[in-house]
Amino acid sequence: MENFSMANPVKIIFGKDMIKEIANEIPQGSKVLLTYGGGSIKKNEVYDQVVKALSGFEWYEFSGIEPNPHYETCMKAVALIKEKDIDFLLSVGGGSVLDATKFIAAAVCFDDGDPGKILKGGKIKKALPFGDVITLPATGSEMNNGAVITRAETQEKLSFGSSLTYPKFSILDPTVTYSLPPRQTGNGVVDAFVHVMEQYLTYYEGDSLLQDNMAEAIVRTLVTVGPKALEEPTNYDVRANLMWASTWALNGWIACGVPQDWATHMIGHELTAFYGLDHAQTLAIVLPGIMTVLKDQKGKKIKRLGKEVFGIEGDDAIDRTIKAVENFFESMGVKTHLSDYNLNDEAITKVTERLASRGWKLGECQNITPDVVKEVLTLRK
Amino acid sequence: MENFSMANPVKIIFGKDMIKEIANEIPQGSKVLLTYGGGSIKKNEVYDQVVKALSGFEWYEFSGIEPNPHYETCMKAVALIKEKDIDFLLSVGGGSVLDATKFIAAAVCFDDGDPGKILKGGKIKKALPFGDVITLPATGSEMNNGAVITRAETQEKLSFGSSLTYPKFSILDPTVTYSLPPRQTGNGVVDAFVHVMEQYLTYYEGDSLLQDNMAEAIVRTLVTVGPKALEEPTNYDVRANLMWASTWALNGWIACGVPQDWATHMIGHELTAFYGLDHAQTLAIVLPGIMTVLKDQKGKKIKRLGKEVFGIEGDDAIDRTIKAVENFFESMGVKTHLSDYNLNDEAITKVTERLASRGWKLGECQNITPDVVKEVLTLRK
Repeated sequence: MENFSMANPVKIIFGKDMIKEIANEIPQGSKVLLTYGGGSIKKNEVYDQVVKALSGFEWYEFSGIEPNPHYETCMKAVALIKEKDIDFLLSVGGGSVLDATKFIAAAVCFDDGDPGKILKGGKIKKALPFGDVITLPATGSEMNNGAVITRAETQEKLSFGSSLTYPKFSILDPTVTYSLPPRQTGNGVVDAFVHVMEQYLTYYEGDSLLQDNMAEAIVRTLVTVGPKALEEPTNYDVRANLMWASTWALNGWIACGVPQDWATHMIGHELTAFYGLDHAQTLAIVLPGIMTVLKDQKGKKIKRLGKEVFGIEGDDAIDRTIKAVENFFESMGVKTHLSDYNLNDEAITKVTERLASRGWKLGECQNITPDVVKEVLTLRK
Repeated sequence: MENFSMANPVKIIFGKDMIKEIANEIPQGSKVLLTYGGGSIKKNEVYDQVVKALSGFEWYEFSGIEPNPHYETCMKAVALIKEKDIDFLLSVGGGSVLDATKFIAAAVCFDDGDPGKILKGGKIKKALPFGDVITLPATGSEMNNGAVITRAETQEKLSFGSSLTYPKFSILDPTVTYSLPPRQTGNGVVDAFVHVMEQYLTYYEGDSLLQDNMAEAIVRTLVTVGPKALEEPTNYDVRANLMWASTWALNGWIACGVPQDWATHMIGHELTAFYGLDHAQTLAIVLPGIMTVLKDQKGKKIKRLGKEVFGIEGDDAIDRTIKAVENFFESMGVKTHLSDYNLNDEAITKVTERLASRGWKLGECQNITPDVVKEVLTLRK
């Protein structure tokens, strides 16, 4: 096990009818900006519950935050915050709204020129406090300090994080997920599954038993409740376990003391940036390719995944486990090949060239060069 | 799954050679009180490392904190803190030293008369900040806000907790556990195992899949590495996994959204208060009795434990699982019957009468009355 330091101060408020707790969590007298996306929260009554909870506060709203939120959109919220002298942010929506809110919170306080520098490693020294109501189990953003922002003008998805960008509180009410379209439920399960894989499916085997067991606990939960969430979208315990497992897939604790991969995400980000695929769609394409091309390096862990999560043992366990992962994605309604999205060799070339231009070597051993990326994507045509 | 609210802000600093990080975690200019126990930290060089890390601070020390720490001892530290105007506490030792430090931190700031009231439900409104170097994996105190204090004059073990009594940081260096006597290693494993059981082995089955899977992840780790820690006391990864799993056994996360039992602990506390048994010894006596007497109520969960952790299925799975738990405790060198400690019917009577005098009904269904306690302990003669 490797050395680590970790604190995760997020207060989780979990369960039905918990949105009203907003009123007890935001400091009295705060001027609040409610941030949200395209308006789905107005259809499922979440907006009404939030507005009711905010009744004692002076508050404003900023809507229109898109999936894969844009830097340019965030900067409009920054201007509004400065104009109204707002001092607390409340994100209501999925991971995209929350990621945008994290960036906005940091950008408002950024005093070293263009806040775009935050996306290129600029240090965050201060951020507005914020909380959230999460409406889509997927990204884990509700219990971590990271975020991914898109620069539309350059077609780049860029990430950042800081100890100052943890939510003060996150409200997780499983009932608000009852009305999610199947596509979003499926995407969320795939996203959470791959988050665990990025922290678990490495060359590391045998030295981090607790982390491995915990990672498998999360994945086993996702594999059990994911398909049920499609079949029984209003089953409370199914939705609750899915929501809580998605949070745990990326709250930082299973990453402690172990190497991490993240190549699937980095390659996937380029597919979204160029072609607008859903984030989870890109992951479902890339991960089976990474597992196949790196099966020597990751073989012991793939076998462990197969045995502990899918019940696969014996001959060809590695290949059958990779197939089981692909089948699981497909069972969640997320297609796993480039051709399913009408992408071809051009996409492979563009993604490979972009990564080459950055000079990135990906994966836990930094051995996923552009040539390896090309091999991975070619397998996924 | 039940509703819950939870935050755990403790910063964990984990790994070899991490004790020096104290210097970066205690605010500059603090006046520090180092609290510790009987001096074992002077034999294994932990004390020297701590003193070196404190070189930039004005600091004092308070030693002699006993296992099952006494209120009376804690109050001596409170007097010293007031005399020296100390504003940060640093606990170096096992769970007893840390529990005492939590009480001291709260008692110094208690402004509603006798600080003993804290042990009877008195509200903690303020506490001194504190950190710790934990030297014995067992209690989980390093990542929770609870503590147990003994009042010597009345032979009572009493617990308390507050959002103000979380450590600011906890340093977990597995190498400091290399020199633990086997008895303390064994006790620690049993303590951590039973912590998980108090949060897992209830009537609740099927609604809290993630919590169940995570509880099993922790227990599976303890069952794998516990015996190895006795065989290979200086194996780093074994000690690291044991230390980290013990922390997770009682950091609050697996208790979220599920009912909790704690009868084994409450009964065990009385055996320690009257007869001075090690805390883990009392748990090893009581738990198999609780499982046996409550096998109807807890049967589904006992079967799940048997299958997922001990690989037991089929006929008599419940009885064989109870036996497997008992055998595991014995394999850790912790005896499981009252007669092993020269206790007899008198002990059963005293414990039962004490619990009857308090009017407590224990367990997740509050159905463990004094009569049931008598039945449990009679089975464990």
